[in-house]
Amino acid sequence: MLTTDKDRMSEKITKFSEYGALKGGGITRLSLSESALAARTEFKKRAEALGMTVETDDVANIYATYPGTEEGLPRIVMGSHLDSVRTGGNYDGVYGVLSSLEVAETIIKSGIKLRHPITVMVWTNEEGARFGPAMMCSGIVMNKFTKEKMYSVVETGGTVTFGEALAASGWVGDEKNRLNNKDYCAYFEPHIEQGPVLEDEGLEIGVVEGVVGMVNYDIILEGVACHAGTFPQNKRKDALRAASKIVLDLWDKLSVLAPDIVFTTGEIHCKPNVHTIVPNYVKFSLDSRHKDMDVIAEVVKVIENLPKEIYGCKLSYEEHWGRKTIRFNDKMIEYVENAAEGLGYSYKHMYSGAGHDAQYVSEILPAVMLFIPSKDGLSHTVVEYSTPDQCWHGANVLLNALVEADSKL
Amino acid sequence: MLTTDKDRMSEKITKFSEYGALKGGGITRLSLSESALAARTEFKKRAEALGMTVETDDVANIYATYPGTEEGLPRIVMGSHLDSVRTGGNYDGVYGVLSSLEVAETIIKSGIKLRHPITVMVWTNEEGARFGPAMMCSGIVMNKFTKEKMYSVVETGGTVTFGEALAASGWVGDEKNRLNNKDYCAYFEPHIEQGPVLEDEGLEIGVVEGVVGMVNYDIILEGVACHAGTFPQNKRKDALRAASKIVLDLWDKLSVLAPDIVFTTGEIHCKPNVHTIVPNYVKFSLDSRHKDMDVIAEVVKVIENLPKEIYGCKLSYEEHWGRKTIRFNDKMIEYVENAAEGLGYSYKHMYSGAGHDAQYVSEILPAVMLFIPSKDGLSHTVVEYSTPDQCWHGANVLLNALVEADSKL
Repeated sequence: MLTTDKDRMSEKITKFSEYGALKGGGITRLSLSESALAARTEFKKRAEALGMTVETDDVANIYATYPGTEEGLPRIVMGSHLDSVRTGGNYDGVYGVLSSLEVAETIIKSGIKLRHPITVMVWTNEEGARFGPAMMCSGIVMNKFTKEKMYSVVETGGTVTFGEALAASGWVGDEKNRLNNKDYCAYFEPHIEQGPVLEDEGLEIGVVEGVVGMVNYDIILEGVACHAGTFPQNKRKDALRAASKIVLDLWDKLSVLAPDIVFTTGEIHCKPNVHTIVPNYVKFSLDSRHKDMDVIAEVVKVIENLPKEIYGCKLSYEEHWGRKTIRFNDKMIEYVENAAEGLGYSYKHMYSGAGHDAQYVSEILPAVMLFIPSKDGLSHTVVEYSTPDQCWHGANVLLNALVEADSKL
Repeated sequence: MLTTDKDRMSEKITKFSEYGALKGGGITRLSLSESALAARTEFKKRAEALGMTVETDDVANIYATYPGTEEGLPRIVMGSHLDSVRTGGNYDGVYGVLSSLEVAETIIKSGIKLRHPITVMVWTNEEGARFGPAMMCSGIVMNKFTKEKMYSVVETGGTVTFGEALAASGWVGDEKNRLNNKDYCAYFEPHIEQGPVLEDEGLEIGVVEGVVGMVNYDIILEGVACHAGTFPQNKRKDALRAASKIVLDLWDKLSVLAPDIVFTTGEIHCKPNVHTIVPNYVKFSLDSRHKDMDVIAEVVKVIENLPKEIYGCKLSYEEHWGRKTIRFNDKMIEYVENAAEGLGYSYKHMYSGAGHDAQYVSEILPAVMLFIPSKDGLSHTVVEYSTPDQCWHGANVLLNALVEADSKL
């Protein structure tokens, strides 16, 4: 089996950790920020040094391509994103780009002959941390969102729109360069797991079969505000008390639906949120995910069957968005599994609980992801970490899966 | 028994509702704001028109005084505050000032001869809504806070300090004019109840025996942040789940301590407060009040005995501040009761659950409060309401209590 260069892989991670580096570790590299643009420039410089042709599309997604041996074959593409959340880490997204770049470097420098051209991709604004939503630019390319609407999105905590940041970036190219299913024939996305499963089970590679389905709700409790000192306890309609009861009820009711279900009440807003006033309004979010859409349907049933009134407070809910479970391409899954197997790495088949650009791409191209372990299962934090060996193993799997795809497609 | 003029009382409420008026009712009349200064000017104009002498002290508390018949007797003072919370109502505070002014107007215009001088007072910044804490200027006068520290308090959501706002107000007078126990001998403060007890029991007057003791805590839950989609449910240390459990436990444990205990979890902060991330930090406030300090001691014991860990999250707490129960002067309570009794108004003895300037004043002067009903028990809201009759009855009680105090002190 072929392997990439471990030291070169590590050097890439180290170098790109400089862009948006925070004192004490980690990065803040928001999409199209100065540090994100500097990381792009470094990527382009390295790709061009390898003899790759670098193009961008109209939303600044980057495509660095190296020709294959057979004329007229579509490209095989691999990549991820370079932007991070605020106080993020050195692996989420960037690992997918850099392992792809390391695979390209290995192929080019080792003189490995592939029939198809290979492309290393960088998606613009995957995180949605500066300009929501997440996966904005794969979403635009796959017609999930209109460009017009996305251009008018204003940055979180600022005044610049996505359209303005894009125009100022110097990275806007031609719409005809967008990823499509005529010029491309397959998509690989390596990523850190962002969960503890591989680490806990002592495994090296996650063969990602798809992305789990999910639903996203707000649950709203409406009571009556009154003075903390003067209003008798038994007459109160306390929205935070009611919300607390519902949070615990949801744990009871959702936990039993499936052993591997996840659900999260991550965001809460309370009004007036003053320590001397009984809250009259609490809204909290519920996010739940599972690969079996029947389980998700059960989650929806639990929400629909919540009491309409609790502790004198009115309960209502709003469905925000959801996604169906996405299954990746069986052949592509097989290439990743074969590569892990051939390299003698321990692995398991798994679903991604998080969304990735690959889920949109899978609608037009055979796509697949592969995961490497995340220390303590943590991501979107400055302590995000995968070892040099783990990073290298992932690149090796990608390399061999790519080579098999090249021979079979 | 003597009575004030009902129409005149109503006219005062109506007129002062103009200062800081909001479309749709209510007011925002933050301390030392333009509208609050305009209300002071109107107060001064009216007091001077009655022949009263208007003075201010060094923190702009206003004292409008009318002489008594006996030389050398100290003043009897009555009043409250003109500032409101944001989106407050037309009764909290201002009713105490205007009923006192109506009593003075009745005495002066009817030629009622009192032995003592009478003073109508306006406290600066009772609400603490623009510059915290509440009861700032009675607190300064009673040496609860230093002037230096209070002057440096910056307005909520702005940049102006209390000291700057005060200097710019044009209302700063002499420190020697501060309320004291040589020039003054008694203090009355009429107020709306801010709770539903009088209304629910169909009573007209609350004879306020004191202000209940209270404690104020923050309770903090610390878990571990992780990704909503990728982190297994049973490994999560979810701070919002833990907080929800503690909120409900507190309801269970505190409710049984005394039938008339109140406790409030009014404020909650969650980090990172993102719907796709399990919260690693939740802090919520606990405010509890009761007139029996032994009950408050039980509350503290409940907090101290909360588990140190819940659902894998660490629990800690911070005590912020508290106050002991304050009992007003028995003779003053008697004058208020006698007045209500003599006028044939239904009444009950009660404690104030909310803090008032009177609680500080009671440390140096015989003090008392009287309450009139609040519609639906609501205050600190634009719908705050007491009927013209209720406002008038309160003024009548104040008038007769003042007359009895004048004769006996």
